[in-house]
Amino acid sequence: MQSDRVALMNTFNRIVLAARPRGEVRPENFRLETVAIPELNDGEVLVRNHFLSLDPYMRGRMSPAKSYAPSQVLDQTMIGGTAGEVVASRHPGFAVGDKVVGMLGWAEMGVADGAQLRKVDAGRIALPAFLGVAGMPGITAWYGLNEIIKLKPGQTLVVSAASGAVGSVVGQLAKRSGCRAVGIAGGREKCDYVVGELGFDACVDYKAGNLKADLAAATPDGIDAIFENVGGEVFDTALARMNAFGRIALCGLIAGYSATPVPIYNVGSLLINRVTLRGFIVTEHMDTWPQALRELEPLVASGVLKYRETIAPNLAAAPEAFIGLLHGKNFGKQLVKLI
Amino acid sequence: MQSDRVALMNTFNRIVLAARPRGEVRPENFRLETVAIPELNDGEVLVRNHFLSLDPYMRGRMSPAKSYAPSQVLDQTMIGGTAGEVVASRHPGFAVGDKVVGMLGWAEMGVADGAQLRKVDAGRIALPAFLGVAGMPGITAWYGLNEIIKLKPGQTLVVSAASGAVGSVVGQLAKRSGCRAVGIAGGREKCDYVVGELGFDACVDYKAGNLKADLAAATPDGIDAIFENVGGEVFDTALARMNAFGRIALCGLIAGYSATPVPIYNVGSLLINRVTLRGFIVTEHMDTWPQALRELEPLVASGVLKYRETIAPNLAAAPEAFIGLLHGKNFGKQLVKLI
Repeated sequence: MQSDRVALMNTFNRIVLAARPRGEVRPENFRLETVAIPELNDGEVLVRNHFLSLDPYMRGRMSPAKSYAPSQVLDQTMIGGTAGEVVASRHPGFAVGDKVVGMLGWAEMGVADGAQLRKVDAGRIALPAFLGVAGMPGITAWYGLNEIIKLKPGQTLVVSAASGAVGSVVGQLAKRSGCRAVGIAGGREKCDYVVGELGFDACVDYKAGNLKADLAAATPDGIDAIFENVGGEVFDTALARMNAFGRIALCGLIAGYSATPVPIYNVGSLLINRVTLRGFIVTEHMDTWPQALRELEPLVASGVLKYRETIAPNLAAAPEAFIGLLHGKNFGKQLVKLI
Repeated sequence: MQSDRVALMNTFNRIVLAARPRGEVRPENFRLETVAIPELNDGEVLVRNHFLSLDPYMRGRMSPAKSYAPSQVLDQTMIGGTAGEVVASRHPGFAVGDKVVGMLGWAEMGVADGAQLRKVDAGRIALPAFLGVAGMPGITAWYGLNEIIKLKPGQTLVVSAASGAVGSVVGQLAKRSGCRAVGIAGGREKCDYVVGELGFDACVDYKAGNLKADLAAATPDGIDAIFENVGGEVFDTALARMNAFGRIALCGLIAGYSATPVPIYNVGSLLINRVTLRGFIVTEHMDTWPQALRELEPLVASGVLKYRETIAPNLAAAPEAFIGLLHGKNFGKQLVKLI
């Protein structure tokens, strides 16, 4: 018994990439393992993760193809953002009990250099929000709006995956800057939330089968800016309604992550309307994170910025939750509870 | 006899838009007419046009669809850039015999406000070159390179329609800034000219049936910048080879001007490689023209910037020449001789 108990305390569970997906991601692409807690070196911190963030970018890392970051290594812990609590520290800046955000992956515990962790105040803002509206997704929204789109009051912005972790912040910030915010989301329930709870001016249900006409009705003055998270037909339909000198922040193309790329027909609109489009990855612009967080955190703490979470109950449920995310089954920020 | 002669001197020929094209442009979309020379008002100038410029943008004006400029009005003189000689003037800045460039359309003569004409020195540079390398097409090349693409030495640029009025200048300017210039053109003869005469590093013949492999061979280090004039498969193939932080100046999409738009599949490359793309129309940036011409004109006058022209013999030949231009039958700048 005694030795069993010690063994339990010296190990934790993690999920590794077992095999690269061919097309759709499947549960057998992942493998749950129990591994030993490593010894800490000087400067390192041991963290008990409370929440794991699941994000569409992970699909790209699972492929061997050229991307903006190295491929996820087979048989290693899947990459992922985490929020948790320090349980041992050999770094002077961290004490046991500190709440921290890091990239410790799909794992119940992890060791990181202290320099790679961000200490957060979980008194003002709930810990999981630092993986969403007050974290990477929220900063992604902020960056695309402020550094690429640069809205002017009265303009119309369209954002896809509008009820998601990024899209929900995009529309709320656009409204705050005096613009018309139009979401695109899948299903009546998500659209009702986007308009009723998040305060968008309109939301088009792309599953209702009337995308072109519904988007036209929701954007009577055309579209000045697109914050694109989905790609494919949704993006193509919005492109056709761009106004002169429109801007597009290209953040994600989840529609094409698993299957054959969906073609775009309305390329001519980029020329006719002299559109500026920029693809971006927010982790390449860490210099902007402090300013973004200075603006976002008070809005989250005061309840002005609203958000919603879908939380899988434990690490073993992460693969299914991730596959659901790629098919839009989540509602708001997709998290995994680890404790 | 006498009255006949007077009548001839008081009239000139022009071509009007007789009917909007449905798909491909056809000769019957145009109509040649003889009209009376108008009386000059104060401030106006009468010009005998020597050369008419034929350009792909004219196809867009022939359509009723929303574009960046008003549609060409039916039964009115087709829009077009012209170079000619002043034959009468009621503007103090212009005297009979002055050489001028303007937008007098598909017509042997025309009246313009002096403010809309540019006086040129046809002693240093041949008159038709002010419609090409030392005019709108040359400035288009300059603008896309300097204001959008911003090449760094050693980078690789790809330009489509490389032997054309714009593309030929793009590649030559890129070479002058220490870059690898790769053209795409239709046919061996054009490609030989692009490499042998214009000095590009390589030119891919898209008609040879091996576009993907040939472009890969010509761009071993990938593509840092695309100056796009064609669109469709040529653009899509180049997109797939973009490097990180690539730039795209979207100048024309001649492949889709007449027929159904050709879809683009490699949209994902814009995100993965964090590409910036901007569509532009050089006539919206007249503030940059003086600087562009200060740089281009000496290079033309000294013979450093090379160019080639295809010249239709008279106004009646303009429709056929324009239809040929839309199918890449011209070789270099397409002009119509009017005198």
